[in-house]
Amino acid sequence: MTRLTVWQASRILYFAEVYIKIEKRGNILSNRVLSILRKNKDEFCSGEELAKQLKISRTAVWKHIRALRKEGYSISSHKKRGYVLEAIPDLLLPEEIQYNLRTEILGKKIYYFSQTDSTIDQMKKLIEKQIPEGTLVVAERQLLGRGRLQRKWESPFGGVWFSVFLKPNVLPALIPQLNLISALVVARTIKSRTGIEACLKWPNDVVIKCQKKGDYPFKKICGILIEMNAEMDKINHLILSFGINVNITGEQFPVSLRDKVVSLHELLGREISRVNFLKELLRNLEEVYLKFKEGNTTFLLKEYKKNSIVLGKKIKVIFPDKQVVTGKAVDIDKEGALILKSGGKKERVVAGEINLLN
Amino acid sequence: MTRLTVWQASRILYFAEVYIKIEKRGNILSNRVLSILRKNKDEFCSGEELAKQLKISRTAVWKHIRALRKEGYSISSHKKRGYVLEAIPDLLLPEEIQYNLRTEILGKKIYYFSQTDSTIDQMKKLIEKQIPEGTLVVAERQLLGRGRLQRKWESPFGGVWFSVFLKPNVLPALIPQLNLISALVVARTIKSRTGIEACLKWPNDVVIKCQKKGDYPFKKICGILIEMNAEMDKINHLILSFGINVNITGEQFPVSLRDKVVSLHELLGREISRVNFLKELLRNLEEVYLKFKEGNTTFLLKEYKKNSIVLGKKIKVIFPDKQVVTGKAVDIDKEGALILKSGGKKERVVAGEINLLN
Repeated sequence: MTRLTVWQASRILYFAEVYIKIEKRGNILSNRVLSILRKNKDEFCSGEELAKQLKISRTAVWKHIRALRKEGYSISSHKKRGYVLEAIPDLLLPEEIQYNLRTEILGKKIYYFSQTDSTIDQMKKLIEKQIPEGTLVVAERQLLGRGRLQRKWESPFGGVWFSVFLKPNVLPALIPQLNLISALVVARTIKSRTGIEACLKWPNDVVIKCQKKGDYPFKKICGILIEMNAEMDKINHLILSFGINVNITGEQFPVSLRDKVVSLHELLGREISRVNFLKELLRNLEEVYLKFKEGNTTFLLKEYKKNSIVLGKKIKVIFPDKQVVTGKAVDIDKEGALILKSGGKKERVVAGEINLLN
Repeated sequence: MTRLTVWQASRILYFAEVYIKIEKRGNILSNRVLSILRKNKDEFCSGEELAKQLKISRTAVWKHIRALRKEGYSISSHKKRGYVLEAIPDLLLPEEIQYNLRTEILGKKIYYFSQTDSTIDQMKKLIEKQIPEGTLVVAERQLLGRGRLQRKWESPFGGVWFSVFLKPNVLPALIPQLNLISALVVARTIKSRTGIEACLKWPNDVVIKCQKKGDYPFKKICGILIEMNAEMDKINHLILSFGINVNITGEQFPVSLRDKVVSLHELLGREISRVNFLKELLRNLEEVYLKFKEGNTTFLLKEYKKNSIVLGKKIKVIFPDKQVVTGKAVDIDKEGALILKSGGKKERVVAGEINLLN
């Protein structure tokens, strides 16, 4: 059994309340209050000024301030001088993600959940309502987070769990490529925000090399799942989902997983801004996605291969039909298949579990 | 403009009424009445006997007889002798399809529509309700029948329009194979029920060789569409849809299509039993589907190739990106791709429009 930390417990209570508030408020006016406070930076802005700019009463201003505080914004008030924004919560709130996001497609529309079953399942419900490409579903916590092959994916508070809705006009056969380069995007973002070198385990696990002896040589820091709806010669749409262990402490993982997974918090010994991490990830993802749509992935696949922990290694492949083959991973082809050299013959692996040998 | 034939107009009125009736009645008791009448073959069965066997009143028996007549069953009644089944309508009614169907998976559950937007769209709605594998959606007429690449598919009364729900535990990469062998199943069924030789145009068009000079050399008799929901290494489910021109007269097709499509009715000069055609098709499909799931398709692909009108021919391929390549179609590989030999080089074609040259 895992014990709930005080921090976790307080967050659960906190989110339950915030959740209802966010669902109810129309967002727009609170956002405009926030936007004015942001612009003023460390300077106070009087309630009168806010009321005037937004054409609302001072009581209404006060209500929006209260709503923002409930969401975790720290706003100081001074009877004469007014309000000043002291601190921004590190919640994955749509207005935080969208602030200076600088993307053209991704995150123009964001659905936020303090907790939900899984962002994939929420996205599926939204797709019926005709959402635009690039729509995001973000959750602070997933109760039924999904991994590959219907496995469970632990998604406690502190991680970055989200799904993106995409409609690339490409053949279904190209999606395994997107699968690979999405992992590359995560590794790039981890490197640029934390300096940590993340590696790639075919097809799309992002892993960290472990130093300690006797430990698993690689621990998983991110999982990616693609669910696509396609005809034979056309992608209708796909849901690209990420689960990234960012500000998660070791004890938040179940004991059984602790030697297989790791978080940025564990590696750095401190929290990072999840909002900034996600924003950079979205920018990187968009850049790579545009290249993918243009068919311009040669360089990306080269970079993927450079970061691969599998290539050049002796590996064991457990195929979906449970057949086991050992051999050397010699290449990854254009369609994203792993080329396995076994007994003098080359074999294309399109799916399977990879285990590194020695 | 196409003129509505008297036959068509009467059918439309007829179906509009039948549709509501079928939706309303609980089916079960009418089916049992039908089943008793069927067993009695050409012998009368008294109202009393029916009432006794079904434990309902004679008035209730009469109501079910009336309901069955509305669906097109011709049932004679004689004051003293009772009822006898004279003729069965050639509608694709679930009870007709399921009678002596002899399949294990396909058609155990059937949703029937006298008319609907498209069987695919109806199936999509049903999937959310957790339907079993092999569920069928059948329509007498589709208002928005869909072809490949969002094209329209003409689906007037008299055709066989249906979708099957499948959950094969195979890799997404294998689905193009299923696409090919589904077309083979239709050609096999046409041959065995009518003696007509149907050919296959890669990937999955079923076509008929035309004799007349100056005409299109091949006319389309069936189109197949697969829509799949998949992860990278797992099919979640797929909808396999068929549109087969069975009892359609030439004038039911729009003028613009008449030199490109053909129906069994046109070829034979008479109607055939659509119910029996569909039943045989389902049996053939199940046989092939089971082999596909076992990975046992070598023989099927060989048969497909034998019936291909493309192999060995000079062809023009229009790729999805509008690029045009001419060459010779030399093979179809295990993954269902067409191998094109052009300028000494071999190229795998996974999607595109094929035109036969000379």
